[in-house]
Amino acid sequence: MTEPSYSLPTIRLKPKSNARAIRHGAPWVYDNELVTDRRTKAIAPGTIARLEDAEQNFLALVAVNPNSRIFARVLDRDEAGVIDAAWFRAKLATALAHRETLFEAPFYRLVHAEADGLPGVVIDRFGDTCVVQPNAAWADVLIEPLTEALRDVTGVTTVVMNGTGRARGLEGLEEKTEILSGKVDEPIPVPMNGATYMADLMGGQKTGLFYDQRPNHAFAQRLVAGKKVLDVFSHVGGFALASLAGGAASALSVDSSAAALDLAEKGADAMGKSAVFSTRKGDAFDVMAALAEEDETFDVVICDPPAFAPSKPALEKGLRAYERVARMAAPLVREGGYLGLCSCSHAADLEKFRTACNRGIGRGVGHLGRSAQLIHTGFAGADHPLMPQLAESGYLKALFYRILP
Amino acid sequence: MTEPSYSLPTIRLKPKSNARAIRHGAPWVYDNELVTDRRTKAIAPGTIARLEDAEQNFLALVAVNPNSRIFARVLDRDEAGVIDAAWFRAKLATALAHRETLFEAPFYRLVHAEADGLPGVVIDRFGDTCVVQPNAAWADVLIEPLTEALRDVTGVTTVVMNGTGRARGLEGLEEKTEILSGKVDEPIPVPMNGATYMADLMGGQKTGLFYDQRPNHAFAQRLVAGKKVLDVFSHVGGFALASLAGGAASALSVDSSAAALDLAEKGADAMGKSAVFSTRKGDAFDVMAALAEEDETFDVVICDPPAFAPSKPALEKGLRAYERVARMAAPLVREGGYLGLCSCSHAADLEKFRTACNRGIGRGVGHLGRSAQLIHTGFAGADHPLMPQLAESGYLKALFYRILP
Repeated sequence: MTEPSYSLPTIRLKPKSNARAIRHGAPWVYDNELVTDRRTKAIAPGTIARLEDAEQNFLALVAVNPNSRIFARVLDRDEAGVIDAAWFRAKLATALAHRETLFEAPFYRLVHAEADGLPGVVIDRFGDTCVVQPNAAWADVLIEPLTEALRDVTGVTTVVMNGTGRARGLEGLEEKTEILSGKVDEPIPVPMNGATYMADLMGGQKTGLFYDQRPNHAFAQRLVAGKKVLDVFSHVGGFALASLAGGAASALSVDSSAAALDLAEKGADAMGKSAVFSTRKGDAFDVMAALAEEDETFDVVICDPPAFAPSKPALEKGLRAYERVARMAAPLVREGGYLGLCSCSHAADLEKFRTACNRGIGRGVGHLGRSAQLIHTGFAGADHPLMPQLAESGYLKALFYRILP
Repeated sequence: MTEPSYSLPTIRLKPKSNARAIRHGAPWVYDNELVTDRRTKAIAPGTIARLEDAEQNFLALVAVNPNSRIFARVLDRDEAGVIDAAWFRAKLATALAHRETLFEAPFYRLVHAEADGLPGVVIDRFGDTCVVQPNAAWADVLIEPLTEALRDVTGVTTVVMNGTGRARGLEGLEEKTEILSGKVDEPIPVPMNGATYMADLMGGQKTGLFYDQRPNHAFAQRLVAGKKVLDVFSHVGGFALASLAGGAASALSVDSSAAALDLAEKGADAMGKSAVFSTRKGDAFDVMAALAEEDETFDVVICDPPAFAPSKPALEKGLRAYERVARMAAPLVREGGYLGLCSCSHAADLEKFRTACNRGIGRGVGHLGRSAQLIHTGFAGADHPLMPQLAESGYLKALFYRILP
C-alpha cells in the first residue's frame, strides 16, 4: 500500500450520482451510484482505489468491496494520501487523544469506525489489550499495518481480532477470532463507573463487554442508593454491577446466558458485593412473568435487551417486543420508583422506541392508576462518536422513567 | 376550593373530540375541542371545573382559562379530588422525593409543570428559597394554598412569585414579581457541579439561574482540564464557571448583559478563580467576529444562546441563527478541540437543530479541510421531567462536537 495513488484502480460515479455529498463528507458510495463494469466488479475486496466523479475529477481515496452494497468507503480526501502504518498512526493518535481526555483509565472504545476516520473498523481497549473488529474488507487486508500502528500508538501488548457479528456477513467476510499479537489471560477485569466487570474477550459477543452503556450506567447510579434493583437482559452484569457500585442495597441480574451470569457473579465477587447480588437464568420475559406472579417489586428496574429491530424488515416486530418489555417491566416497579428501558436497534429511532415504551408502560400500569414521567434520555458514550450527517444512526437509546402514583 | 366537585362548573368535549386521548393521559384541552357557549366563556380564569365527554361521562377535574388557547388543563382524574393545600402537599412531596434522590444539596427545579402534576407551574429551589412561576391562571388563583404547601413540604422560609415571561402572556396573565413570604438576600450563591453561581432572583430571567443545563455543564467539565475555554452567551457564567470548576486553565465569558457578567464575575470570585476568568461584554456575533479577527483560538468553545426559535413562525429564522452561531464558533476551536452548541427553542427539534449546526460547522471550517465528530447529545436535567407523550417537546438540546484535522 505504499505505491502512489496514480497506480491505483479508479472507480467512477454515474453521471447523476451525488458527487456533492461525497465532497461534503458522505462516507459511503453504494453500488448503484457507480459505473460498475466487469473490471470494477473484479476488483479484489479491500483494494484501495481512486474515486472520481462523472467528469473524472478526483474525489477521494476509497476502499472497495464489490461484495458489499457499500461498494466504496472513503478513506482519504487527499489524492497524495498513502494508506500505510503511518496513516493508521495518525488516525489512531487523533482517536486516542479524545479518549484520554474523557477517561482516566485505558478502558474504552478507541475507534468507532467512520466517525474516527477508519470506516468499518471498531477497536475496543481493555488496558494492555485491544480487540479489533475489522468489519470491512479493507481492514482485513490491512490488518498488519493497522495492528503495528495500534501497538505503536497505544503501547498495548496484545491485539485480538474479533471477526464475528452481523456486519462482517454484510461485507461477505468470514467469521474468525484470533490473537494477532501477545496473549490473553481471561477473564479481564474491567473498571467502569466504579464497578468491576469481567470480560471474556475470546468468547465473542456473548461474553465480551460493551462500553456504550457507560453514561447510562452512570445515570442509573444516581437513582439506586439504598435501593433494590432488577437488571433484565443483564449480560455480564451491566446495570446490576453499576448499581451495586452506586450503593444499591441489592441487585438481581436476569439473563438467558449462564456464561454471562457467571461473569457477572465473578464481577460482583471482585467488588466484594456477592452477598447482595443474585442472578436468575432464563428467558427474560418468562422471568419477568414469574416475578410478577411472585408479587416481587423493585425500586429500580432496568431492561437492556438485545437488538429486537436490527434491520428495517424487523422493525414492527421489534417495536412490539420493546413494548412488551415495557409492559411487563413497569408493574415490577414500586410507586415512585424508576424504570430504565434501552434499545440498541439501529432501525428503531428514538421516537419510535419511545412510543413503544410509552405504550407498554401505559398498558402495564395504566389500569393501576399509575402514570409515568420521562426523566432522562441517554445515548452511547462519547467514545462512540458519530459522523454528524449520520447522527440519526445513533443506535443506542436509553429512556429512564419514573412511575408515579 | 374545598367544596365537593358536584358544585363545580362543567365543561364538555364536542362530540368528535378525542376523549380517548384525555383518558390516556393527555394534559390539555384546546378551546376548539370544547362546547363553548356564553356560560363557559364567562367562567373566571383559573376556575376548577369538571370535564366531561360528549356523553356526559366524567373525565377529569380541570383548571379552566377562557383567555388561553389551552382552555382546560387536567388536574385530577379522580372525581372526588379536592384541589386544596393537602392536594398540593401530595404533589409536592412526590416531586421532592425525586429531587432528593437526584441531588445532595437543595438546589434544583422542584416542579416542572405538567410532568409533575401541576400544569403550568414551575418551581425552582435555591436552598431556603423557592421561586414559583405560576404560568397558568389556576395557579395564580390558588397561589396561597400552593405557597402554604410548599413551605410545609420543603421547609423553605422564602417564597418568591416570578410572574414574568412569555408563558403568562399566552395565558392573558399580567407580569408581576413579588415576595410571597420571607425575605430575599441577593445575590444567592448556588452550588452546581462544583461551581458557584450567583443568582439574582428578583431580577427575573435576565439574571436568575437555570438548572436545566446541569448535565451539559457536567459533560463539558470532562473536556476542559487544563484547557482554554470560551463561553458565548454565557449569562451568569453557565459553562465558563462549570469549566473552571472542572479544571480549565482559563475561561472567557461573552454576554450582552453587564448585569449577568457582573454576577458571573462574583461567582468566579467566590470560587477563587478570578485570576483565570475574564469577560467580554457585547453582541455575541460581534465578539466572535472580533475574536476571529484577533486570531484567537480556544480548546473548547460552547455557545448557549437564547431561544432563537421560540415558536413555529420563528423557526426558519431561528435555524439560520443557530447555523450562524456554529459557523462563527467552529473556526475559533483549535484542531482536536471541542465545540458545544445548545438550543433552548421549543420549535427547533433535535434533528432540525443538528442539521443547522452540522451545516454551520461545515461552512465554518470545511474550507480549512477540517471535519467534525458528534460526540454527545444532551438534554435538560432529570429534575426537568417530561410527560412521555409530550417528550418531543423537550426544549433543551446540547450537541458536543470534536473538530478534527
